[in-house]
Amino acid sequence: MISLAELQRRIEAGDLSADAAIQQSLEAIAAQDKTIGAFVCHRLAAHAPSDGPLRGIAVGIKDIIDTANFSTEMGSPIYRGFHPRADAPVVAMLKLAGATIIGKTTTTAFASIDPTPTLNPHNHGHTPGGSSSGSAAAVAAGMIPLALGTQTGGSVIRPASFCGVAAIKPSYRLLPTVGVKCYSWTLDTVGLFAAGVDDVARGLAGMTGRPELLLPPDIPTPRIGVVTQDFAGSPEASGGEALQTAARAAERAGATVHGVDLPEIVAEAWRAHPVIQEFEAHQALAWEYREHYDAMAPLLRAKLDESKGTPHAAYDAAVAVAHRARQALETVFDEIDVLLTLSAPGAAPKGLGSTGDARYNRLWTLMGVPCVNVPAFVAEGNLPVGVQVIAKHGADARALAAARFVERAIARQ
Amino acid sequence: MISLAELQRRIEAGDLSADAAIQQSLEAIAAQDKTIGAFVCHRLAAHAPSDGPLRGIAVGIKDIIDTANFSTEMGSPIYRGFHPRADAPVVAMLKLAGATIIGKTTTTAFASIDPTPTLNPHNHGHTPGGSSSGSAAAVAAGMIPLALGTQTGGSVIRPASFCGVAAIKPSYRLLPTVGVKCYSWTLDTVGLFAAGVDDVARGLAGMTGRPELLLPPDIPTPRIGVVTQDFAGSPEASGGEALQTAARAAERAGATVHGVDLPEIVAEAWRAHPVIQEFEAHQALAWEYREHYDAMAPLLRAKLDESKGTPHAAYDAAVAVAHRARQALETVFDEIDVLLTLSAPGAAPKGLGSTGDARYNRLWTLMGVPCVNVPAFVAEGNLPVGVQVIAKHGADARALAAARFVERAIARQ
Repeated sequence: MISLAELQRRIEAGDLSADAAIQQSLEAIAAQDKTIGAFVCHRLAAHAPSDGPLRGIAVGIKDIIDTANFSTEMGSPIYRGFHPRADAPVVAMLKLAGATIIGKTTTTAFASIDPTPTLNPHNHGHTPGGSSSGSAAAVAAGMIPLALGTQTGGSVIRPASFCGVAAIKPSYRLLPTVGVKCYSWTLDTVGLFAAGVDDVARGLAGMTGRPELLLPPDIPTPRIGVVTQDFAGSPEASGGEALQTAARAAERAGATVHGVDLPEIVAEAWRAHPVIQEFEAHQALAWEYREHYDAMAPLLRAKLDESKGTPHAAYDAAVAVAHRARQALETVFDEIDVLLTLSAPGAAPKGLGSTGDARYNRLWTLMGVPCVNVPAFVAEGNLPVGVQVIAKHGADARALAAARFVERAIARQ
Repeated sequence: MISLAELQRRIEAGDLSADAAIQQSLEAIAAQDKTIGAFVCHRLAAHAPSDGPLRGIAVGIKDIIDTANFSTEMGSPIYRGFHPRADAPVVAMLKLAGATIIGKTTTTAFASIDPTPTLNPHNHGHTPGGSSSGSAAAVAAGMIPLALGTQTGGSVIRPASFCGVAAIKPSYRLLPTVGVKCYSWTLDTVGLFAAGVDDVARGLAGMTGRPELLLPPDIPTPRIGVVTQDFAGSPEASGGEALQTAARAAERAGATVHGVDLPEIVAEAWRAHPVIQEFEAHQALAWEYREHYDAMAPLLRAKLDESKGTPHAAYDAAVAVAHRARQALETVFDEIDVLLTLSAPGAAPKGLGSTGDARYNRLWTLMGVPCVNVPAFVAEGNLPVGVQVIAKHGADARALAAARFVERAIARQ
């Protein structure tokens, strides 16, 4: 993989030009993307801006995010050839920071569950996960050092776990979702993929202009609460292995690690998530569902057919549960710095029939808390499995620092 | 003005066809819009759907709201000829309810403060207010029975006050802002204009499919707290007259009416509003500001120039103040049903140099509470002045019912 931190250091030291860094990505895309299929479209040549913290950083943008210089097709024929007028704010932020938008990455239709043809770079017989399939795969394959995705259920953390890359789903609203095709306004969150936790932190700090998100020189030793999310069912063996590996490594490295029970209202919020997600999707995608029903991706369409007519009262009740659960979750963080939990049930499923299951992600999306994926284990078939490090809302810097602690602890084992 | 309630009754009774109702609006537009200038573009012929609660209702859509069948130009040459692919959800909701989208109404550039050439139907020498200028003027001139606008500072309630129409800025997120050009995601709220409170309630109930928003057959007598918003400065004489008129009429009609002091944190939130608004605008309009600086409307551009470089810490602090103020405001509603306050400092300013002042609106936009404008007074020059009736977040039905009580009390005087 291409380390963003390493590129920054070499560019700053004058060992590498920003243009040469971009060229490296262009060549890697040319060499690999015919096989992996991570890009919908990409530039064939590009020059880097001469300044900005992210100069020389080639970035892939999930194709539900508006770009003025590339079409934005939402993974759906309904948007074939659609050209937004403006860049989404997250894209404008990247450009302002000096990054080079290198192309658009594949997405399931409207960031839902119909798989793209993208392959998992670690094992071509497996899905890279979704819905941010191309962004995770492009970073994992070493094509680009940074990519943007979005998460409504588990569409950042899960593909990161399956592809063995670091990723952050930041606190809700740290990054604007303006100009990002909406599925659920309560849930949709823009996230970043990069090689390691330091790389992700640098990407996020660079694009937001918030230096406090950079890792501190001395990573503090975190108090970690391990959560198994029993309300979401049992993980597969490889998921359990990943969580145990990470917890043991962190403890060995000096962290306080103990199990934590979540308040009952939080489990209730886990059940409320799909009600909110699908109710809002019926409004967000009302035009597509009504005017282009036949052209909609079949799994998404079936999901919308099934959730049609959800009463307002059920939605209102789910929103109220989520509100109370966010307050209850705050108190969990009185005693600990971060939670450690599964990023996915296990390794990437075989084939391209499914992008995997978001059941260990959706609660945290609804809670709006920052989640960082850290690769923790390699299962049979060379398939990575990650864990997620979660801090309270607004504590993105703490989530990143603790994730770096866990990442380093695992590497030292 | 055209009463939506009256149209519905006549259509239901078979006294008027839905097509004839639409035709009435087409003729009124043809007769009047050359003078008023409320529409950016409109249909010349249209047939109404045969069912839905809003069949036969011609609706004007503010031109920052995406429409698949009309261009969406944001009041700016930067978006000249821009055709979104999809209808915004609020537009799709109207169509699903049987309404006919008749055209796009004028908006200040990006719903900011640069006036449009639209005239106030009550006095052509005065502004109709902004930023939803065309929507307020089109309803006031009797061209259409319903229009959509948006409010970030005071862009629904203020033009409604200036134009003598009823309007609701609903609870934050009752209506999705997906597909609506963003200025500030914390603030932007879609609202409705119609002839009277009952008309507004029927429009909102019809488009959301929430019958609980319809006025009850017996309007309950509300407990009203009068708020003068001293932190926002003093009103003009006509604004003060409107508030006194409404308060006295309500008391005479049997309501409990007394003055209410707002907690200090709420006044602080009033001061926080512009920090949040402009900080988010710099992100929401980053592409336009960076790539089309010269083509930006001058007052908006100057506002962005001035607020450039606001520190993240100031924004984060403002967001935290707003959060605490929302909680404090909840408790104010323990003793009363609604607040009654100014909709604007006074009548519409002379000329078209300014769209007026949002200082009595912006707090309530930030609090996310439902606000209903009720015309209360007519100042010199035949200029209407309204008051706003405000309920707690989520109590849109209560705000509408109390506004109807006040509207009726004023009419009976």
